[in-house]
Amino acid sequence: MADYLFENAHLLTMSGDGVGYVRNGAIAVENGRIKAVGATSDLKQSVVAKETIDARNMCIMPGLIDGHMHASYAVVRGVAQDIWNWMQAGLAPYHKYMTPAAFLAGTRCAVVEGIKAGTTLFGDYAWPVDGWGDVFASAGVRAVLTARINSLPAQGMAGLKIGDLYPFDEARGKETIDQATAFIDNWNRAYDGRINVMYGPQGPDMIGLDQFMECKKMAADRGLMVHVHTAQGDREIDQMVKRYGERTPAFLQEIGYLDEQLLAVHLTEATDEETELIAKSGAKMALCSGSIGIIDGIVPPAHVFRQAGGSVCLGSDQAAGNNCHNIWNEMKLTSLFNKIKYKDPTTLPAWEVLRMGTIEGAKALGLDDEIGSLEVGKKADLICLDVTEANVLPILDGPIRTLVPNLIFAATGREVVHSMIDGKFVMRDRIINTLDEQAIRENVQIQGEIVANNVAADPVQRSMKLLEAMEAGNL
Amino acid sequence: MADYLFENAHLLTMSGDGVGYVRNGAIAVENGRIKAVGATSDLKQSVVAKETIDARNMCIMPGLIDGHMHASYAVVRGVAQDIWNWMQAGLAPYHKYMTPAAFLAGTRCAVVEGIKAGTTLFGDYAWPVDGWGDVFASAGVRAVLTARINSLPAQGMAGLKIGDLYPFDEARGKETIDQATAFIDNWNRAYDGRINVMYGPQGPDMIGLDQFMECKKMAADRGLMVHVHTAQGDREIDQMVKRYGERTPAFLQEIGYLDEQLLAVHLTEATDEETELIAKSGAKMALCSGSIGIIDGIVPPAHVFRQAGGSVCLGSDQAAGNNCHNIWNEMKLTSLFNKIKYKDPTTLPAWEVLRMGTIEGAKALGLDDEIGSLEVGKKADLICLDVTEANVLPILDGPIRTLVPNLIFAATGREVVHSMIDGKFVMRDRIINTLDEQAIRENVQIQGEIVANNVAADPVQRSMKLLEAMEAGNL
Repeated sequence: MADYLFENAHLLTMSGDGVGYVRNGAIAVENGRIKAVGATSDLKQSVVAKETIDARNMCIMPGLIDGHMHASYAVVRGVAQDIWNWMQAGLAPYHKYMTPAAFLAGTRCAVVEGIKAGTTLFGDYAWPVDGWGDVFASAGVRAVLTARINSLPAQGMAGLKIGDLYPFDEARGKETIDQATAFIDNWNRAYDGRINVMYGPQGPDMIGLDQFMECKKMAADRGLMVHVHTAQGDREIDQMVKRYGERTPAFLQEIGYLDEQLLAVHLTEATDEETELIAKSGAKMALCSGSIGIIDGIVPPAHVFRQAGGSVCLGSDQAAGNNCHNIWNEMKLTSLFNKIKYKDPTTLPAWEVLRMGTIEGAKALGLDDEIGSLEVGKKADLICLDVTEANVLPILDGPIRTLVPNLIFAATGREVVHSMIDGKFVMRDRIINTLDEQAIRENVQIQGEIVANNVAADPVQRSMKLLEAMEAGNL
Repeated sequence: MADYLFENAHLLTMSGDGVGYVRNGAIAVENGRIKAVGATSDLKQSVVAKETIDARNMCIMPGLIDGHMHASYAVVRGVAQDIWNWMQAGLAPYHKYMTPAAFLAGTRCAVVEGIKAGTTLFGDYAWPVDGWGDVFASAGVRAVLTARINSLPAQGMAGLKIGDLYPFDEARGKETIDQATAFIDNWNRAYDGRINVMYGPQGPDMIGLDQFMECKKMAADRGLMVHVHTAQGDREIDQMVKRYGERTPAFLQEIGYLDEQLLAVHLTEATDEETELIAKSGAKMALCSGSIGIIDGIVPPAHVFRQAGGSVCLGSDQAAGNNCHNIWNEMKLTSLFNKIKYKDPTTLPAWEVLRMGTIEGAKALGLDDEIGSLEVGKKADLICLDVTEANVLPILDGPIRTLVPNLIFAATGREVVHSMIDGKFVMRDRIINTLDEQAIRENVQIQGEIVANNVAADPVQRSMKLLEAMEAGNL
C-alpha cells in the first residue's frame, strides 16, 4: 500500500528531454520512493494509499537542487554587496568573528529559507564545525556536504601583498584533509543516503599539488566527487600562472583532474574555449548566477558549458552578498543574465533553467539515478506549488502552455506549500515539521548581532567599504 | 486626532539623498496624509491616535511606484518570452482576442498582484475600455492612467512589409485623441487626486507630427505630462530615420519635445549620448528592466540617465513576457543587470534602486510633492513589511546596516503585510480589503482560457514561435 497518493495536479516530471508535463496527474509514494506516476484516472485505479492528497490547483515537481552554498554566511546576510573586493572589503571582518554558534545559526537559517522556497537538496561547502551535519540530518533534507580542505596558513595571510604566491603549509593541509576525511567517513551516505559527501579542495591555488592530487585519489577510493572552486577569480588565475605557468583549466587537464569526478564551481574567469574543454571532459559545473552577478558583475559561461554537453547545477552560494538562498531566484537570473550576455532572448529559456534546478542539477552532483525527476523508483523528493496565486495566473494549457514560464519568471518561491523529501513531509501547508522555525529565526538575529558587535569593536572594520554608504545615509 | 499611529518600526523614509533610515520609528496618519514622522518615543508623546499599530519587527516605507505597465496583458501572462520578435510571434495572436472582459480581468489581476507585492501607484498605459479607470478607483490604489493615442490604421497593418513606413490615418488619430481627452477630462485628479492621467502618444513613429505636437499642447494646457514610448526599438528608429531623417532623440529635441513634460519610456535603443541629451533636458525616464531583459536581452541606459541627473521610475511593463508586476523584481534586476552591463559591482547599489522604486519614481511622474517619501504633509501611501522572515534575516544595525540590501536582493514582495494608500488600509495582514481577490483570480483564469481557445481555433496561431517548444515537450 502506498503511503501517499497526490492527485489532480499539474505534474512537471522533468523526465525525458523537456519538462515532462502531465495534465491532471497523480503520483504515489511508498517507503520513500516514487511508486507510480501518471494520469490521475489511471492511478486512482491502480494505487491504494494510506492518505490521498487532493493537489488540484497545484503543480508538483521535483524538489529544487542547490548545488553550491556556503550556508553559514546567512548569519551575516547583506554585509558584502555593492562593493569591489567583496570578500576582503565586506565579508572578512565578519568572517573573523564567526563562532561555531554563529556558523550553525546561519546554516539553520539558510536551511529554513531554502525549504520554504522549495529546495530539497542542500549542497553546502564549509568548515566542518561540530553539529554541521546534524543541521541537515535533523531538518530531514537531502544534502551533499563538502568539508573545506586547503593548505593555507591557519593564522591567515595578513602579511601578503597582492600578487605574492600563497605560502602552503603542508601540516595544515594534512590537518584539513584528515578532518574532512573523518567527516566523510562518518557521514557518507548517512541516513539511507540522504546525506552525501564530497571531497573539497578549496581551489587549485589554495593547496599544494601533492595534497590536491591526494584529495582526488581519496575521493575516487570512496566513489566520491571532488568539489572545487575552479577559475573562480583573477587572483586564482594569477596564482596558477605564477606557480605552474598555466591557467587553471589547462593545468587541471595536464594533471588529470578533468573528468566526471570533478564538480567545477563558478568558472567565472574561464574563457569559452576553457569552458568547452572542461565540459567535454565530463566534469560538471556549479553556477551561482546571483552571487557572481552581485559580487563580480559577471555572468559565468554556463550556456557554453551546456552547449558543449555538460551538466550544470545551480547554487545560491553565500548570503553575505547574494543575498538569498532561493533557487527560483537562481533559475530566473540564469535565464535573464544569459539573454543579456548574448543579447538574445532565446538563450536559456524557462525550461532549460528549470532542468538546471532539477534533473540537470542532479546529474551534476552524480545523483540523477536517485533524484531530479519524478520517475518510478526514484526517491520521493518533491514540492507542491499553489498555482492560483495572482502572480502566476492564468495557467493556460494551450496553444502555449504557460505554467513553466510563469513559474520561472514570476514565482518567488512562496508558492511552495508542501515539501516532501525521502517520502516524508518536511513542510506541509508552509509549516516546517522537522525544526523550530521561530527559534531559528530568533537565533540567527541574536548570533548575527553578536558577530556584528564584535566587528564594531574591532579596528579592522574601519576598512570596510560599505561604511561610506552608512555615513552617507544610504543604508 | 490622528487616525493611525504606527510605532516601533524600522522606517525607510526616503527623505534626503539616501534612504532616510529611522531606528524604532513611528509615523502618524491623519485625513489621508502623514501628520508626523520620527522616533517612537517622540511621537508617543506628541500624537494621540484612534488606533495604534505596533509595527515591531516591521519595516515601514513608501509604497512602491510602478510607473509603466500594460496591466491588461496579465490575462495572457507567459505567452511571449524566450523568443525573438515577442510582440508579433508571441503576443499578437492573443492580443487579437483581447475582449474588454479579458482586458479588465487581466488589469484586475495585475492590480491584485501589485498590491500584494507593495505597489501603491499603478502607471497603466492602455486602450481606455469602459471600466478601466474604475478598476483602480475601486481598488483604492493610486494610479497614473494613460490612454493610448496613435494614428495607425484601426484595421491593423497586415499588408505592410518590414521597413515600409507606417501609414498614418489622421481620422484615426483624431478619434484616439478625442477618446483619450474624454478619459482625461473625466479622470484627471479624480478621487481627490488619487487617480492621475497623462497624454499618451504611443511613440513618435506611430502618429503624424501635427497630432503628436497637439498631444503635447493639450497636455500642457492641463498641466499634464506626456507618456511616450521613446527609442524603444530598432523598428522605431528605422521609421524615424526614414520619415524625418533623424533618430528619435535628435528629432524630439528639434521639435521641442524634450523637456520636463516628457516621460520617455524604455530608451532601449538610445545611445549614451542620446540618453544624456534626454536626461539633461529635464525629461524623465521609465525603465522596465525585467521586460526588456526578457524580450530583448537588453539593459536600457538608466544608469547613464541617472548619472546625467535625470529621474528614473521603474515599470513592470507587461506580463505576456516579463512575466510579473512586482517592483521588488524590477529593483533587484535593475541593480544586477547594470552591475553586469558595466562589469562593476558598485553600479546601482541597493539604495539607488530603492530610490527609483519610491522617491525618484515619484519625481519621474511629477508627483514627488505628494508621494514617494514618508514626510509630513505628504499623502500616506506606505507599506509595512515583516522583516522576521528567514530570507531577510538577520537585520543588523551596524557597523553595516543590512536592512536595505536584504530587502532589495532577498525580499520577494511577499514580506509586505499591510498597504495603506491615501491614508486608508487597502491591504491588512495580507488581505486586500477593497476587492474580491478570489473572484479576480478565478476570473482571470476563465478569461485567459477564452482568449487562448480563440487563439487555438485561429490559423494565425500556427506562426507562434513557442509552438515549437510545445511540440518538443518543453512547456
